[in-house]
Amino acid sequence: MMITGTTRLFGIIGDPVAPLRSPALFNAGFARLARDAAFLPFEVPAGDLPAVWAGLTRLRNLDGLVMTMPHKEAVVPLLDALGPTARLTGTVNTVRRREGGGWEGEMFDGEGFRDGLERAGHAPRGAAILQVGCGAAGRAIAFALARAGVGRLTLHDAAAGRAEALVAALKAGWPSLEVAAGAAAPAGHAIIVNATPLGLRPGDPLPLQPDTIAPGQVVADVIPKPEITPLLAAARERGCPIVTGRAMHEGQARLAAAYLGITGWEG
Amino acid sequence: MMITGTTRLFGIIGDPVAPLRSPALFNAGFARLARDAAFLPFEVPAGDLPAVWAGLTRLRNLDGLVMTMPHKEAVVPLLDALGPTARLTGTVNTVRRREGGGWEGEMFDGEGFRDGLERAGHAPRGAAILQVGCGAAGRAIAFALARAGVGRLTLHDAAAGRAEALVAALKAGWPSLEVAAGAAAPAGHAIIVNATPLGLRPGDPLPLQPDTIAPGQVVADVIPKPEITPLLAAARERGCPIVTGRAMHEGQARLAAAYLGITGWEG
Repeated sequence: MMITGTTRLFGIIGDPVAPLRSPALFNAGFARLARDAAFLPFEVPAGDLPAVWAGLTRLRNLDGLVMTMPHKEAVVPLLDALGPTARLTGTVNTVRRREGGGWEGEMFDGEGFRDGLERAGHAPRGAAILQVGCGAAGRAIAFALARAGVGRLTLHDAAAGRAEALVAALKAGWPSLEVAAGAAAPAGHAIIVNATPLGLRPGDPLPLQPDTIAPGQVVADVIPKPEITPLLAAARERGCPIVTGRAMHEGQARLAAAYLGITGWEG
Repeated sequence: MMITGTTRLFGIIGDPVAPLRSPALFNAGFARLARDAAFLPFEVPAGDLPAVWAGLTRLRNLDGLVMTMPHKEAVVPLLDALGPTARLTGTVNTVRRREGGGWEGEMFDGEGFRDGLERAGHAPRGAAILQVGCGAAGRAIAFALARAGVGRLTLHDAAAGRAEALVAALKAGWPSLEVAAGAAAPAGHAIIVNATPLGLRPGDPLPLQPDTIAPGQVVADVIPKPEITPLLAAARERGCPIVTGRAMHEGQARLAAAYLGITGWEG
């Protein structure tokens, strides 16, 4: 596919952008669909988002954007309308033009993770799940797990009060949900989820002690790159089925593509 | 070439962008050079340039921009430094990051036209040239023809006073230059240049009466698309050598690529 003057633009806003998989994934999709469109990395430091937003949204040939760290919450006040999951989580990962003007956004990180987990053969319905990390991605994932009918959910975050706040938000939406803040202790859970950014950078500490994981427990990670994080490597060594960030990422991309009107994504 | 998270960005800001050849030309160049870079069309209405500029220049992975209609003059006050031709013409077609911060711009439309004309075998040195159109592109071309040692230059513009103002500006730089404002009358000139936008859109009037062109006079056009404008078609029918906007455009691209640090452009 060659970019010409008629090519429609899409992109992802984040910092850093070098490790992101979305550009390769979407451009491969556009090539497969023979669609005259390109998906670009836009590297934007946190404080620059309002100015960049004002500029990019004035490009008449730009049709949509994916938002990633550190912009998933910061973009919310810049939008003219929010989808239901964006309203619930206060975060957005995909934005598009509204008919009649302005921009609207929705959050697919959680549903993308859930979709990837299910396609990997590990449905969250009825399962006991430990989730470490309750930031923007973690919030979205917890809501998606609740919506999917998780059996019991334990939430942990190193920052004081964050897990408790998410428990309260989940209880408000699903009063009978079995959810509690707790230690990063895998025992008693069928699925362990890392929703922290730990593992993205070399030398990061592990999000939990790997020797507390038992063979047979499913370990899933949200980190897109490296695909096999130190946590997943340790889990695999202990005989655990693993689900990499790629599964979540492909799930997000499927849902974002549909939201952005990119039809035929899955052939 | 596949765009990924590490791909460096370049682009052209204009309106409309669909007819522009720069994206295809630069992306073919990047592919030839195996350079991890992409060149994008950015469609920006005239009044939106300041906001778009503030946004795009904050993209840390954007290295340079080409400016085209209607932004070649409007970008000048947004820059931190200007090259010599940009200062002379008050117009800019290429911008890049400065070492130490900020952005600088230079104007290559005129030198690109001159370069294309020479490569087509029609050196302006010593020649009598009629140039129709004294807008931003026309000003740059006239300065490049003066610098190249044109023998005699006749300038015409449909807007009152525009040709005369350009004559005065040229005389200030080259006091002994033989240049005058005059009618759009080819007689007595070896080379006829269309530097107006007439021919870009279907149904445009011709920039001059084609039946006043004599066989053997060289007719050159700045319009990038259609490559054979109605003026060039008429000139070719009358047995005139023609130089299309492609020659100018490839000349501009060579000079812009060098300014943007894209080495090895011509293999």
